Amino acid sequence: MRMKKFINRSEDLVSELLEGLVLSHPETLQLVGHNLIARRNRKARGKVEVVTLGGSGHEPGLSGFVGEGMLDVSVAGGIFAAPGAPSCLEALRWADGGAGVLLVVLNHAGDVLSANITMEMARREGLNVKMVLTHEDISGGPNPEDRRGLVGFLPVYKVAGAAAEEGQSLEQCFAIADRMERNMRTLAVAVRTATHPSTGQMIFELGDDEMEIGMGQHGEAGTGRMKMKSADETAEIMLQMLLDDLKVKPGEELLVLLNGAGATTLMELFILFRRVHQVLEEKGIKLVRGKVGEFITTQEQAGFQLLIARLDPELIRLWDAPSNAPYFTVK
Amino acid sequence: MRMKKFINRSEDLVSELLEGLVLSHPETLQLVGHNLIARRNRKARGKVEVVTLGGSGHEPGLSGFVGEGMLDVSVAGGIFAAPGAPSCLEALRWADGGAGVLLVVLNHAGDVLSANITMEMARREGLNVKMVLTHEDISGGPNPEDRRGLVGFLPVYKVAGAAAEEGQSLEQCFAIADRMERNMRTLAVAVRTATHPSTGQMIFELGDDEMEIGMGQHGEAGTGRMKMKSADETAEIMLQMLLDDLKVKPGEELLVLLNGAGATTLMELFILFRRVHQVLEEKGIKLVRGKVGEFITTQEQAGFQLLIARLDPELIRLWDAPSNAPYFTVK
Repeated sequence: MRMKKFINRSEDLVSELLEGLVLSHPETLQLVGHNLIARRNRKARGKVEVVTLGGSGHEPGLSGFVGEGMLDVSVAGGIFAAPGAPSCLEALRWADGGAGVLLVVLNHAGDVLSANITMEMARREGLNVKMVLTHEDISGGPNPEDRRGLVGFLPVYKVAGAAAEEGQSLEQCFAIADRMERNMRTLAVAVRTATHPSTGQMIFELGDDEMEIGMGQHGEAGTGRMKMKSADETAEIMLQMLLDDLKVKPGEELLVLLNGAGATTLMELFILFRRVHQVLEEKGIKLVRGKVGEFITTQEQAGFQLLIARLDPELIRLWDAPSNAPYFTVK
Repeated sequence: MRMKKFINRSEDLVSELLEGLVLSHPETLQLVGHNLIARRNRKARGKVEVVTLGGSGHEPGLSGFVGEGMLDVSVAGGIFAAPGAPSCLEALRWADGGAGVLLVVLNHAGDVLSANITMEMARREGLNVKMVLTHEDISGGPNPEDRRGLVGFLPVYKVAGAAAEEGQSLEQCFAIADRMERNMRTLAVAVRTATHPSTGQMIFELGDDEMEIGMGQHGEAGTGRMKMKSADETAEIMLQMLLDDLKVKPGEELLVLLNGAGATTLMELFILFRRVHQVLEEKGIKLVRGKVGEFITTQEQAGFQLLIARLDPELIRLWDAPSNAPYFTVK
């Protein structure tokens, strides 16, 4: 597969894409410092600020979720690469307005390394920062440390951002983010590779009739390859693995997210969502909130991530709260 | 390229995808009649209703734009196929609450045929319907009748829907939609084909190093193939063609939309938007509103549509008005 992308020089990819993101949302976003995307027009300093960090090439994740009711600052790294600790520290300094900062980090080795160094430097400077690590990808096995952070960042940003907007304290925002994190599970599946926009190389290889459940956002190996299955079979297999892992009981209320990897169509995601809805109904589990779209992509990869999360009345209220983030607007 | 899609039986594609769309937005959408997606909980019958029709397989277009402040009903056809006149007439009957119906139709042969038969039947029934045809694709040549309707449906839905929500009359809504339509131009480019989800066949073929400017939403031939160009060169060529055709003068205020065809990344669209913004600034033309995303897709096709539209204060106000359409939420 030859790369056919509308790009210029590979060394300018990140700066140019961030420039375009901000220019297309001048009322909401601004660039501050080195590859930091920040909210514009924050009403009052003094609320808890929510900050994240992560590699580029996954658009609209992560910087597309900066806005009222979600993130205050996103630190963008290189293509598929964590940002350095100096940029992350700069973001924390910029964000902190007295009420503290909640740093949301997806469990990937490079991101965690940068985040840990940043947290250590922030402590020495006396910044008031608490960190939440998301690791909800069940394909990593039973040990939470081995589980990657996938699209689960989205509900964490949403409920923590809404709590911060309401004026809740750093301890409260942390507790809400942590409760969301512990109650969510994700599983991914890939069916077609993508090309790396800097090198033009394929990220991984898959047979013409194969799919792989559990593949990570950068082609990391999953739980095994199998022959392509129908939408309904795929949804049933993945949903059952998630329900078992989260130990969901009849009568419980779930959020379901279906995230397209890039080239998988909304058409397919709707067909899959329909089957997830049917199976949950058969089991007496309530699908109370759902969302289908592309929130974190891996270039033109085909596949999707299925997330389920157990909700409670407070998490539902925060999930429903308004947001003007460009790629997650809630009226 | 072998088809790798999460689908079930090809004859169920449309009904299953519409079911998933509605199940994922139960507070906003409902299915009424045969493949009609309608707004739920309309406050008051008595406002002008905005209705559209078109083929499926282009999600989130067109039914993802049903909601407060945009469409009232969308009539979904088969994959890449217009819905029949009986379904369209059913939609008009369902929609009409006394203030009349504005029917927005994209200029494609099958859609126009269905719409014309529908309009004739509606007139005989005494329904009060006015039709707006969008044909803003400049690759069709100088004759407006030869120009297809591309992503321009989006600003037309938006401003007409907002005017209807404000309580404007059918004549006023029509005049606004018509003014928007006459002041917009689109050009598309394709770089990689997609597979037809019913047949598995490739929609068109393009060389490994080729792109085609002007290709339509179903692989219709454009203005000619050329070697792949950089993002900046592609943006410059296409923008200049659009500016010339719309006869834009320095000081005028433009809306710019960049619509991804399916597999082209937001990363690329942001890089392109940045260059469009730079060129307009150099020319003293004001980019006052912009939007980057996937609004109408052709499965996993790679490429994009660039739209420019001349705005005036009333169109800007209506563009900014709130919407709770699932795939175009404005807070």
